[in-house]
Amino acid sequence: MQNTLQIVEVSPRDGLQNEKGFVETADKLALIDRLIGMGATRIEVASFVNPRRVPQMADAEAVVAGLPDAPGVRFIGLCLNERGVDRAIASRDAPGRSLDEAGCVLVATDGFGIINQGQTVAEGIAANTLMLAKAKAAGLFAQVTISAAFGCPYEGHVDPAHVVELAARMADAGAQEIALADTIGVGVPNQVGDLTGAVIEKIAGVPVRLHLHDTRGLAPANAWAGYQAGCRTFDSALGGLGGCPFAPGAAGNVGTEELLYLFGRSGLSTGLDIDAAVAANHWFAAIMGRPLPSRVGKAGDFIINGERVA
Amino acid sequence: MQNTLQIVEVSPRDGLQNEKGFVETADKLALIDRLIGMGATRIEVASFVNPRRVPQMADAEAVVAGLPDAPGVRFIGLCLNERGVDRAIASRDAPGRSLDEAGCVLVATDGFGIINQGQTVAEGIAANTLMLAKAKAAGLFAQVTISAAFGCPYEGHVDPAHVVELAARMADAGAQEIALADTIGVGVPNQVGDLTGAVIEKIAGVPVRLHLHDTRGLAPANAWAGYQAGCRTFDSALGGLGGCPFAPGAAGNVGTEELLYLFGRSGLSTGLDIDAAVAANHWFAAIMGRPLPSRVGKAGDFIINGERVA
Repeated sequence: MQNTLQIVEVSPRDGLQNEKGFVETADKLALIDRLIGMGATRIEVASFVNPRRVPQMADAEAVVAGLPDAPGVRFIGLCLNERGVDRAIASRDAPGRSLDEAGCVLVATDGFGIINQGQTVAEGIAANTLMLAKAKAAGLFAQVTISAAFGCPYEGHVDPAHVVELAARMADAGAQEIALADTIGVGVPNQVGDLTGAVIEKIAGVPVRLHLHDTRGLAPANAWAGYQAGCRTFDSALGGLGGCPFAPGAAGNVGTEELLYLFGRSGLSTGLDIDAAVAANHWFAAIMGRPLPSRVGKAGDFIINGERVA
Repeated sequence: MQNTLQIVEVSPRDGLQNEKGFVETADKLALIDRLIGMGATRIEVASFVNPRRVPQMADAEAVVAGLPDAPGVRFIGLCLNERGVDRAIASRDAPGRSLDEAGCVLVATDGFGIINQGQTVAEGIAANTLMLAKAKAAGLFAQVTISAAFGCPYEGHVDPAHVVELAARMADAGAQEIALADTIGVGVPNQVGDLTGAVIEKIAGVPVRLHLHDTRGLAPANAWAGYQAGCRTFDSALGGLGGCPFAPGAAGNVGTEELLYLFGRSGLSTGLDIDAAVAANHWFAAIMGRPLPSRVGKAGDFIINGERVA
């Protein structure tokens, strides 16, 4: 049976990259195994970034080399520049299972782009155009995330028409999927629904994905607005991982458990199992030595006397 | 200027009633002062419940006696039975400011009603009919909350048609406002929107309020769905207070900060100030000796370089 919705599990990459303490490669691979056990079929496993800037991702090649043989699962590597795409392509030469997708990143504003990636929007468009072509030529599914699409940590307001234009440029550049990211968790439902709908209309034929952070508790509301606007693919991280570990409760990505609860009780299938996700949450919380931010991870599904409430 | 939406601040009652450590009457009154300073104009200040069952509310009369003279602010006392209504009425004889509203409670299911209030739904209808009449005759604004309207901790699924019927019965009994409560935080947006809309249609003329818990992180999504269905009044608690203090992160009521962020950035006015709410959150967290669950309380409004992003 075809699922209505698709979840892209980003906990091994976006969920962990801001963790100060290094998470061992074996733990990252065990996490990936748990995600597959939950039913995840697209998993962002690593970022090919400068290890001096993001030490947590220094083992990107080792993670890819250790990926399990998992038929039907697509593994994603994040690429912030051409060097990242080269590494993603090269990592496929390692023994065993290899990457299936290159996830590129275009920052929507000059202010954040210069600080995050050392490039303006115009430079980002040019770089991503090359990166997408190179990844595609190497046989990787080439997708791109437009970062800070709903608000910028340096410039504040981001003009939605500008984001629609960026999406069109990336579609023209051959992107096979385009994600809109609420990188700092400032979006509200009308805004997310309106922009998502406008992008879907503009780049008809290229699938749109939403990447939401739950910094202000609105990610589930925004996911629902995005669904209503036609989005069918959503990033999320087990446990809502991704927050700064030194700011208690400063949540990161929307929790996979939250999306499974939201969509599952709304009658929409994702192919992921919520009980397995809650169990994986508790297992990984023990590894991390602290509770994870997801609220569904703590409360569980709506279960009375051992029976799931329909 | 008329505000589009109304927030009922329930932190002094629903936010605190499950706290194991007794919150001093002076701290409760200081909290009420802060809520008024934030711009709250309706505040649930106490519950007239058996102090053996809810020790935290044992000082209900003392709280009411200490209420500030606050023109334009309406104070609510929760009444679970006729004795509660009698106490709410009697507390008005104390010196100083008195209560304005009696908040009655009708549990939507036999299973939860018998355990929570020692009565079936049929008995609850009869009791609330008397209670509403008595409160109204004494000059109190008489409103009622239908508890477990979106799911029951004992029976699970609650038939929405049953809740619509209960609302109609309470409207017939003279209720001046009817709230629908997601007591255990299991609702999802379509469900909340559909039932809220159905009740609004059924009891046309009687205002409908939503009381949402954020147990599974969906309260803001549900509030937005309720707004879209026509609801204009929402309960919330500063800091998302109301969770069990011994279950870290098991959130209680939807945070006032979350609703102010959601509605404020959606262009809807509530009359409450989000910065004052965030400051009050930090002030009360220090009194409670722990961070409060609200995410907006931690992250704050969308502010760049000291300026609020429009």
